[in-house]
Amino acid sequence: MIVIDLNSDLGESFGAFKIGNDEEVLKHISSANVACGYHGGDHNVMFETVRRAKKYGVQIGAHPGFPDLSGFGRREMKLTPREIYNLMIYQIGALQVVCKVNGTNLVHVKPHGALYNMASKDRFMSDSIAQAIFDVNPELVLFALAGSELAKAGEERGLVVAGEVFADRTYQTDGTLTSRQEKNAMIHDSEYAITRVIRMIKEGKVEAVDGTDIDIHADTICVHGDDPHALEFVSRLKQAFLQENIQIRKSWERK
Amino acid sequence: MIVIDLNSDLGESFGAFKIGNDEEVLKHISSANVACGYHGGDHNVMFETVRRAKKYGVQIGAHPGFPDLSGFGRREMKLTPREIYNLMIYQIGALQVVCKVNGTNLVHVKPHGALYNMASKDRFMSDSIAQAIFDVNPELVLFALAGSELAKAGEERGLVVAGEVFADRTYQTDGTLTSRQEKNAMIHDSEYAITRVIRMIKEGKVEAVDGTDIDIHADTICVHGDDPHALEFVSRLKQAFLQENIQIRKSWERK
Amino acid sequence: MIVIDLNSDLGESFGAFKIGNDEEVLKHISSANVACGYHGGDHNVMFETVRRAKKYGVQIGAHPGFPDLSGFGRREMKLTPREIYNLMIYQIGALQVVCKVNGTNLVHVKPHGALYNMASKDRFMSDSIAQAIFDVNPELVLFALAGSELAKAGEERGLVVAGEVFADRTYQTDGTLTSRQEKNAMIHDSEYAITRVIRMIKEGKVEAVDGTDIDIHADTICVHGDDPHALEFVSRLKQAFLQENIQIRKSWERK
Amino acid sequence: MIVIDLNSDLGESFGAFKIGNDEEVLKHISSANVACGYHGGDHNVMFETVRRAKKYGVQIGAHPGFPDLSGFGRREMKLTPREIYNLMIYQIGALQVVCKVNGTNLVHVKPHGALYNMASKDRFMSDSIAQAIFDVNPELVLFALAGSELAKAGEERGLVVAGEVFADRTYQTDGTLTSRQEKNAMIHDSEYAITRVIRMIKEGKVEAVDGTDIDIHADTICVHGDDPHALEFVSRLKQAFLQENIQIRKSWERK
Repeated sequence: MIVIDLNSDLGESFGAFKIGNDEEVLKHISSANVACGYHGGDHNVMFETVRRAKKYGVQIGAHPGFPDLSGFGRREMKLTPREIYNLMIYQIGALQVVCKVNGTNLVHVKPHGALYNMASKDRFMSDSIAQAIFDVNPELVLFALAGSELAKAGEERGLVVAGEVFADRTYQTDGTLTSRQEKNAMIHDSEYAITRVIRMIKEGKVEAVDGTDIDIHADTICVHGDDPHALEFVSRLKQAFLQENIQIRKSWERK
Repeated sequence: MIVIDLNSDLGESFGAFKIGNDEEVLKHISSANVACGYHGGDHNVMFETVRRAKKYGVQIGAHPGFPDLSGFGRREMKLTPREIYNLMIYQIGALQVVCKVNGTNLVHVKPHGALYNMASKDRFMSDSIAQAIFDVNPELVLFALAGSELAKAGEERGLVVAGEVFADRTYQTDGTLTSRQEKNAMIHDSEYAITRVIRMIKEGKVEAVDGTDIDIHADTICVHGDDPHALEFVSRLKQAFLQENIQIRKSWERK
Repeated sequence: MIVIDLNSDLGESFGAFKIGNDEEVLKHISSANVACGYHGGDHNVMFETVRRAKKYGVQIGAHPGFPDLSGFGRREMKLTPREIYNLMIYQIGALQVVCKVNGTNLVHVKPHGALYNMASKDRFMSDSIAQAIFDVNPELVLFALAGSELAKAGEERGLVVAGEVFADRTYQTDGTLTSRQEKNAMIHDSEYAITRVIRMIKEGKVEAVDGTDIDIHADTICVHGDDPHALEFVSRLKQAFLQENIQIRKSWERK
Repeated sequence: MIVIDLNSDLGESFGAFKIGNDEEVLKHISSANVACGYHGGDHNVMFETVRRAKKYGVQIGAHPGFPDLSGFGRREMKLTPREIYNLMIYQIGALQVVCKVNGTNLVHVKPHGALYNMASKDRFMSDSIAQAIFDVNPELVLFALAGSELAKAGEERGLVVAGEVFADRTYQTDGTLTSRQEKNAMIHDSEYAITRVIRMIKEGKVEAVDGTDIDIHADTICVHGDDPHALEFVSRLKQAFLQENIQIRKSWERK
């Protein structure tokens, strides 16, 4: 039996500032990455998001980011490994207890935005992130770009690592995502995107931008819910899974 | 044997903004109230403060405040009981895990500034605060103004409550502190302040501003460390304790 | 000839957090109240909003609020008159120069949220607000709740004051708005709301909640643009103005 | 007659968080760079600082920084030239009107921290900064690292540019400052530092770390006031100016 996880970034609203369509997205996914108050989210939004995820039986993960609300955590910040560790601990700790008082558990951690992107290539940052997750709870699953430095750091640290792949992005020969600055970064044809995802899951292969096949290990797929089009795509993706006998993951186990 | 706790608000620096003289204060107190990033403190300062408190064998408590860095948590904010609960959970949760990864435990919680003052008189707020502390961990000790609504809410919720008294403040007949707006709010004569504290501890009495004696139960005394004069006062207070055979508390037990 | 102004609160987005439907609203109104970075808005949003307002020939005003992004400036804050003055100057000053470098002028000032509501009843706050506006530029028009303390403070200070009325709110006998906590605070029947507005403009009268008629001076009407329903209401309101020979104001003059 | 300006960064306190010794520093300098609320400072501190500077007859400049209070504007942020322009306008505009309502004028602008350092080497950023200053008021003087990209951008834009030099830092052969990461970045010997400054002013030369002489044009010297030692250094520096017949600048003129 082949299983796959579907994750989405949720709980990014802040006070009166509403982002996303969380209630609707939760009906389609298996893992929710919940913002922890640094790039988005606040204590009220976190409570609401945890309760909603619980209601829909969706697993809850922390989505810690840089302390940069005005930049939504998307701006690169040069911090010491020590500070990376500290800000991870703070944010994961806050969400963990929000889960606890709502009678549920924190299952995974996925760094957000520039923190995720920088860590994918920077081993010092990745080691800090992996160590922080391990120190909070060694059972937490790390969501990391498949094949990235962050994935390697998590595995070496002894964490269960879920390799994340993107349905709507193209890949370079070295397994990294094509930069959004490039024209061919995005895949707009849904049929083609779905075919690629199915192949990543079943064959562990994806075609890079230069036409060569590269190895890729897909444990979880990042989906978006910010517009009706995005949700329709998720529906079609799940229909394809049904036909291909791919099941949505219910939990993570040590391999 | 009579025991008393000495607490102080620490870890209130924020990034490059330095506040207080924490290293020095820690040599004199038994309980440190550590800011949690809302009115002051940040993830780096919290780590540093927890490590320092551990080094000096000082018990660590959370010092959660209103989300108001520019007002240092001293401005009244009208929030719903629900939001009070949420912001308490978030801040205590963050500090609790900082303690955990540093190999130590969170022992108590003392609300900060306007949150403390408003809760002293408002039972709805107090119930939210007491419930939040209880839900994180029912073993946590609540530091509350002796005799206040907050102290009552904590006791009813089943928490160990430490009645907090102030050496340098005068009291009204109903046991509340005289507002700082009033001329006679502060006690500037150290000898007189020390005599009052000793009497509060040994007799459970203090003279109110109208000259009548009122009952007061002193478990912990709030001391400051922001200037050399403040630290000298703490030294003299501890010397008086020695002479009066009052010991500094090492831990909290259920009565 | 009877003239009336239509104003709306715009430019309240913050970084990645989008609020409102500014482009659409600007097609319907004559005055835009632009957030200045304290309760919403940021330097980028301010530039974009000023340019858009200029494009549609809409007059630009500052919409300063409390320094409370997480509460969107809707939470009451007790600040000294001195601080109210200072925060007004800062925010108006910042927007004024954004107007200048975009080749346009700041025309009016309307305090936001809790600052507006508190000032409506508090003369000390109102005097600070009026003085701040006067000191930046005595030609600036003050938008204030018709008949409020803020309106009186502005007039005494020598400012042109535009009395603001609300189409969708009920009034108390003393001319204040019925609190949103009350059941009968809002008017949901659009026909009735439009009839009331026309009467306020033409007769200077409105029926209070107790059935008595009160005097009201309407210079500008606050309209919302946050949903399609709201924009449709504005369209119908403008149609009614056409039939009643009420013209949309183009500029403000000293009476 | 040789003249020189002495500048210092002031008004960086934020709410209850106090930084620096502004009152004392103002007695020694001729130009105050006032923080504008992004990396430090707030509307209250800005008012207080402008009044103090005026009292001591010290010229007032804006000290705009990145929107990063927790990092004190010292962390590199990758922003578009457009956003650099916008944040400059906002901050300068806010301070300019604070000056106006206090009966004084804004004279110069000196970018802060990482914004200053990045702009010294990046012409796109520098052009945005120079254009923003020019658009607010072409009479404003730009304080820029002597010989830097920022200085060049200012000159090309038609601004009066004051070349800034540092008494306690060493220089590379290309005229840039030695990075603080390097061991030989700082000069700790005050006598040597003073001798170097005098030579920079009188001869327009300074010895780089490799022993060669480089050209440097010193219009203003950055001094610090954060400790008693720093202030003593300024006193000795001014004494040396007296002996060398170097006068403290009173105003800036177009060359």
